[in-house]
Amino acid sequence: MDNTRVVLSKRPEAEATPDCFTVLTEPVADLAEGQVRVDVEYISVDAGTRTMLRGEGFHQQVELGGTVLAGGVGKIIESNVEGMTVGQAVRGPLCAQTVATLNAEYLEPIEDLPGLPLSAYLGALGGSTGVTAWIGIREVSKPQPGDLFVVSAAAGAVGCLAGQIAKKDGAIVIGIAGGNRKTTYLQDQLGFDHVIDYKSEDIGQRLKSIAPEGVNGFFDNVGGAVLDAVLDNLALRAKVTICGAISQYDHMDAVTGPSMYLRLAERQAQMEGFAFFHFPEKIPAATAELKSWLLDGSITMPEEILEGIERYPEALQFMFNGGNLGKLMVKP
Amino acid sequence: MDNTRVVLSKRPEAEATPDCFTVLTEPVADLAEGQVRVDVEYISVDAGTRTMLRGEGFHQQVELGGTVLAGGVGKIIESNVEGMTVGQAVRGPLCAQTVATLNAEYLEPIEDLPGLPLSAYLGALGGSTGVTAWIGIREVSKPQPGDLFVVSAAAGAVGCLAGQIAKKDGAIVIGIAGGNRKTTYLQDQLGFDHVIDYKSEDIGQRLKSIAPEGVNGFFDNVGGAVLDAVLDNLALRAKVTICGAISQYDHMDAVTGPSMYLRLAERQAQMEGFAFFHFPEKIPAATAELKSWLLDGSITMPEEILEGIERYPEALQFMFNGGNLGKLMVKP
Repeated sequence: MDNTRVVLSKRPEAEATPDCFTVLTEPVADLAEGQVRVDVEYISVDAGTRTMLRGEGFHQQVELGGTVLAGGVGKIIESNVEGMTVGQAVRGPLCAQTVATLNAEYLEPIEDLPGLPLSAYLGALGGSTGVTAWIGIREVSKPQPGDLFVVSAAAGAVGCLAGQIAKKDGAIVIGIAGGNRKTTYLQDQLGFDHVIDYKSEDIGQRLKSIAPEGVNGFFDNVGGAVLDAVLDNLALRAKVTICGAISQYDHMDAVTGPSMYLRLAERQAQMEGFAFFHFPEKIPAATAELKSWLLDGSITMPEEILEGIERYPEALQFMFNGGNLGKLMVKP
Repeated sequence: MDNTRVVLSKRPEAEATPDCFTVLTEPVADLAEGQVRVDVEYISVDAGTRTMLRGEGFHQQVELGGTVLAGGVGKIIESNVEGMTVGQAVRGPLCAQTVATLNAEYLEPIEDLPGLPLSAYLGALGGSTGVTAWIGIREVSKPQPGDLFVVSAAAGAVGCLAGQIAKKDGAIVIGIAGGNRKTTYLQDQLGFDHVIDYKSEDIGQRLKSIAPEGVNGFFDNVGGAVLDAVLDNLALRAKVTICGAISQYDHMDAVTGPSMYLRLAERQAQMEGFAFFHFPEKIPAATAELKSWLLDGSITMPEEILEGIERYPEALQFMFNGGNLGKLMVKP
């Protein structure tokens, strides 16, 4: 049996372009004690991956010549481990490849339920996506009914769920996204109260018109100019949640800090950062509630899936160019 | 009777240098209905004044040709208002001048107590100094016993009190200040646990050595590189309080935001801003406790006083060059 994998052949200097990656096909090794083999069905494409390609930093790093780190779901096709049977669906660090061979302790068995495709475990139920959105809204942002609540990268996997959960909690949700396809989807399909197209509109002017007294909350996935525009329009005692900063991941050595941060002092406002793994005790509740909402249809996670492992580098670039709507995955 | 006042004759482009100001002497006008006349004893010199010289922005602005706005204390020498008697000590927006003529409703009568010079009402008991430090520590930072707690501009009027109050509350206090005179004073006279001289030491390296697991709290008055160095050394769930940003007041149109702000997400940390006037209900308690600490000698506010109204521009420049230790005032 062969495995086809995407390896990092050159560290990106700015944008992670497809020429930084090579696709290799090799026969798989024999299964060692404690290992299982997984047929990868979906590979998650994540903004955070960019920070793992630098060779240094806070996040786990991809080695040069190593397979690109990525979460995935699939089914066990060979097992040396009792209790991990062939056919079991699993989620884990399967990486950007067609067949993953790894120690069973890294894998989490998942339920293959009717009405819930395995891809949902990377999107609406994924740790860095749906669970991040749930924890960010319920444990950090905590929007109150009637709050004017802004979400950036609102058509992304985290943002579109964060906005839907904030709406469930009674907030008036303002989504910032790029391009008509995304803003129309957010307003018409997901019921966002207001949408701002940062590619064609001035965020600050729109916010001043929607929220003359300022916005009460902001869930930021973008950083840079978007963060500054919202900071400049905070209401008194507003709360800003820092979830991510996709505009900065290309140049983590020289992040542009929010020049409007002194609005925090002027408006007695807060900025709080988090990652879902800071709240391990909340993950089961988050997952259970997200699953019930998915099954009753009260939330939607749009998915975009590129087919073919060789398209993983293209998918990563597509994400950084703001192309995808909802959860982006590769189906090897 | 003549009044000598400092007027803004040119808006500063960067640093507020003495050539931006003119000193004028003119006879005072007759007292109108509702007015009192005050002999100004002390004029407060504040970092925040710089933001009032721009001609636009969040803060109240000084007009070109207008008297520089400043808080002051003095005694009533003439009164058209019942209940405001000659000899009464008052505090208010007396501005940078020798004799203030203004409506009585802007003035707050203060007690002229033995052991408490009137200058204390601008320093340890001042709204933007002692009261700001008390509210910032007690209502925003809330350091816990044993916390490693950093204060920047620690030898300034706000910083030196913030550090002393944090120590009263059980924190291990690390002061950042510039130059041997200040760091020695903080350590020897005020009992700060650690001091870092930003002019001769690398803040990040010193913090890594004092607090290998990171610091739990930070009370920032400086911004810029100092803020970034501390953000880079936050412990999990640390809290950063934004009180001021003296490094940025010269160029409020192009504030350098903290490029290390993503540490907030990595460390699940918070940044919260405030001004003392956001907590009007806490001012009486803050003032009463500060007054009792001053009288029992358990806190100290160093004061530096330049004599002569014509020295106000020089005093402002001295503050921005980091010259003063404690509260800086002009005695006209």
